[in-house]
Amino acid sequence: MIESLTNLKIKYLVKLKQKKYRSLHNQFLVEGEHLVFEAKKSNMVETIFYTDDNYGIEDSFQISNQVMLKISELGNSKGVVAICNKQDFKDLSNKILMLDGIQDPGNLGTLIRSAAAFGFKTIIAENTVDFFNEKVIRSSQGAIFYVNLIEANLSEFIEKNKNYHYYGTDVLKGQNLKDVTFGHDKIVIVLGNEGNGVRDIIKSKMNTNIRISMQATESLNVGVAGGILMYEAREE
Amino acid sequence: MIESLTNLKIKYLVKLKQKKYRSLHNQFLVEGEHLVFEAKKSNMVETIFYTDDNYGIEDSFQISNQVMLKISELGNSKGVVAICNKQDFKDLSNKILMLDGIQDPGNLGTLIRSAAAFGFKTIIAENTVDFFNEKVIRSSQGAIFYVNLIEANLSEFIEKNKNYHYYGTDVLKGQNLKDVTFGHDKIVIVLGNEGNGVRDIIKSKMNTNIRISMQATESLNVGVAGGILMYEAREE
Repeated sequence: MIESLTNLKIKYLVKLKQKKYRSLHNQFLVEGEHLVFEAKKSNMVETIFYTDDNYGIEDSFQISNQVMLKISELGNSKGVVAICNKQDFKDLSNKILMLDGIQDPGNLGTLIRSAAAFGFKTIIAENTVDFFNEKVIRSSQGAIFYVNLIEANLSEFIEKNKNYHYYGTDVLKGQNLKDVTFGHDKIVIVLGNEGNGVRDIIKSKMNTNIRISMQATESLNVGVAGGILMYEAREE
Repeated sequence: MIESLTNLKIKYLVKLKQKKYRSLHNQFLVEGEHLVFEAKKSNMVETIFYTDDNYGIEDSFQISNQVMLKISELGNSKGVVAICNKQDFKDLSNKILMLDGIQDPGNLGTLIRSAAAFGFKTIIAENTVDFFNEKVIRSSQGAIFYVNLIEANLSEFIEKNKNYHYYGTDVLKGQNLKDVTFGHDKIVIVLGNEGNGVRDIIKSKMNTNIRISMQATESLNVGVAGGILMYEAREE
């Protein structure tokens, strides 16, 4: 049983709490039975650290409650934390969600969850909170394991992928959502920063900009707006 | 300038961080320029405590940075905190959002924000996190000041208000949303607990139960599901 925080495996695990090490090693952490189970179904688990139950994973290490308490993001002294491998880049799906500067981890996780639910299996982001931030993973409820996550320069992506129809969001000048038809095989829905929306440079590259009509002076959370747009554009 | 945490006004303010005192005194706290400004527009501000700017409110007290740091939920040493009066009960709106056991303050705040945006001006809740929890207020982005918030026994409310058409949510047995028409003047949309959904006793009282069709094994955040349903049922 590992009982020391200076154990090399534990020191490596702690490093993965930082984005720079997650990027460097192409690995990330997940915590808790439900998420580890989902990660395992997707064959993404490399190693687990557990206090009571090894979840049938070969490369597993028992750790003391004191060590768990130190590494747990949830403040747990019992449970499981897994080191997972990021998935390799896959082909682009027909429906893509593009994110321009989402800052809140809860919003990003919720958007990933909705994207998985409505068949947007590729998510492309720039200037956005890290996909593998632990709060993002938690609020995605495990959907993070079922979508293709890409960080890219959005302008360049759009220029290189002209075979998609791009739907941006513009709360002032967009076309009313109820009048929009998503009649294209390959579509991209673009959502912007919580405070500032989609950047003008990206907006100008859209085929269609959309607004969701609502009561004057009100606004929507970006996760909700994205959910409504992806629902309207979903595959059935 | 108030410089002591034992000042009676400050001690009263600190009490309002607890739900029981908010309920007892029918008052609550808001923090930050944007929210205080929104509360002031709705004539709900009673007293403000500020470090630099009194916002033109008559009943205002300057406090030291040290006191602000102690009372701020955001860890600020400069800024403004206001004591607000809860609004009196108003007539029921034609569109009502009913909440059965929402536990996450962020979800509740997001639902209040979407409700205000789509004309659901009355929200009725049971077993739900307090409307006046500071995280709820913050994630409502001020929409909390524009809706009528009621805590009630949902079963009794439904029995007493048979002139509304009740739309529940049932992810397994509900009617597909795309086949549902919201063709009634007076409607109630009912959302349930994050883990367990709407209680069976409430579901059984619905005129229609709805499911939002999505990819197998996936699910939606309740704030997103509520946003989609209220968008579909909105007034224009």
